[in-house]
Amino acid sequence: MLTVHHLGISQSERIVWLCEELGIPYEYKRYDRDSVTRLAPAAYKALHPDGTAPVITDGNLVLPESGAIIEYIIAKYGNGKLTVGKDNPAFADHLFWLHYANASFMPNHMGGMFALMTGDKSDNPMLAMIDQRKANSYALAEKYLGRAPFFGGKDVSGADINMVFVLTTMRMFVPHDLSNSPNIRAYLQRIGARPAYQRAMAKAEPGMPPLLT
Amino acid sequence: MLTVHHLGISQSERIVWLCEELGIPYEYKRYDRDSVTRLAPAAYKALHPDGTAPVITDGNLVLPESGAIIEYIIAKYGNGKLTVGKDNPAFADHLFWLHYANASFMPNHMGGMFALMTGDKSDNPMLAMIDQRKANSYALAEKYLGRAPFFGGKDVSGADINMVFVLTTMRMFVPHDLSNSPNIRAYLQRIGARPAYQRAMAKAEPGMPPLLT
Repeated sequence: MLTVHHLGISQSERIVWLCEELGIPYEYKRYDRDSVTRLAPAAYKALHPDGTAPVITDGNLVLPESGAIIEYIIAKYGNGKLTVGKDNPAFADHLFWLHYANASFMPNHMGGMFALMTGDKSDNPMLAMIDQRKANSYALAEKYLGRAPFFGGKDVSGADINMVFVLTTMRMFVPHDLSNSPNIRAYLQRIGARPAYQRAMAKAEPGMPPLLT
Repeated sequence: MLTVHHLGISQSERIVWLCEELGIPYEYKRYDRDSVTRLAPAAYKALHPDGTAPVITDGNLVLPESGAIIEYIIAKYGNGKLTVGKDNPAFADHLFWLHYANASFMPNHMGGMFALMTGDKSDNPMLAMIDQRKANSYALAEKYLGRAPFFGGKDVSGADINMVFVLTTMRMFVPHDLSNSPNIRAYLQRIGARPAYQRAMAKAEPGMPPLLT
């Protein structure tokens, strides 16, 4: 049985959403962060040595890493849903955003936080470079959503599953103002209107309104 | 025509290697880093707004992001080579390493460098956490390579194309001692013995012996 191990307020909300979009049966287990350190509890870290969310289990398989889980579940249980085939004109775009979400956008967004948490709050070229990379990532997403309604072209796909967390819940850790990003805001409204996303977020974060604006 | 835009000493060596493994025709363009700043030259940044390597062009398509390029080229031009299908027992492992390379391993490895470059050289909990994450990533790779010869199971796959840079050239930016990682060292010897890898590195970095030990 496919089990989604959800760590509260983390990237694993993606996998709850994915399962709701696919309408597949899955077991759901929630783990709360330590109330003082805000880190994952020991039970979550015991799932996999990296101790990061998300993690799924499926029989004997224990699989972390958002992009890998998204591709695995879609291939194994998706029945062709949420895929963008190699003859689709958006094939390359879909692959780009599927990987870009965590390999570039998230490090670009979070880099400043890690740098600041090391103690140096001063103005320096490295922090400026990190800020510029973050701004570039948002600009790239804003531009793409001006020519396609979803990150894999005209329909929702695995690329959206990976990108939405980056544009929503991640901004609770490092804020980013979307007032000059009308395409991203319109996109988030489209996502927020999806019943599967609403079901997933009500299940994964019942006390937290999704950050869609 | 598929064109690989290689920025000297960068992640784009992966894509040269990928094309050599597949034995497909491709155009090769090399760009040298600025001799003072070590950053990409303007001609490379002009390819794509993010200005990061690798980038490929294919007709009108301009595609950055290692993982996306690897999946794109293998799907479009691979004729089934370097793939790990969904019924292969290593399917999930292959997906894990394909994504883990740049979404987790590389940020874990490079995080310390960015933190130090912000100016704070002191001992603090954030740097210790970053070091621990780096150590965990190497330990995870070492363990996996004790039970499989390649990152996608018994044969070379796209997961190896993404992982090898992380274990070799990336260590020129942030050193990491492999003396206690016999499985990784044996793996790098296997990779280094591959004619396609040798051809790729001779082409991409003629003056630089690959960091295989």
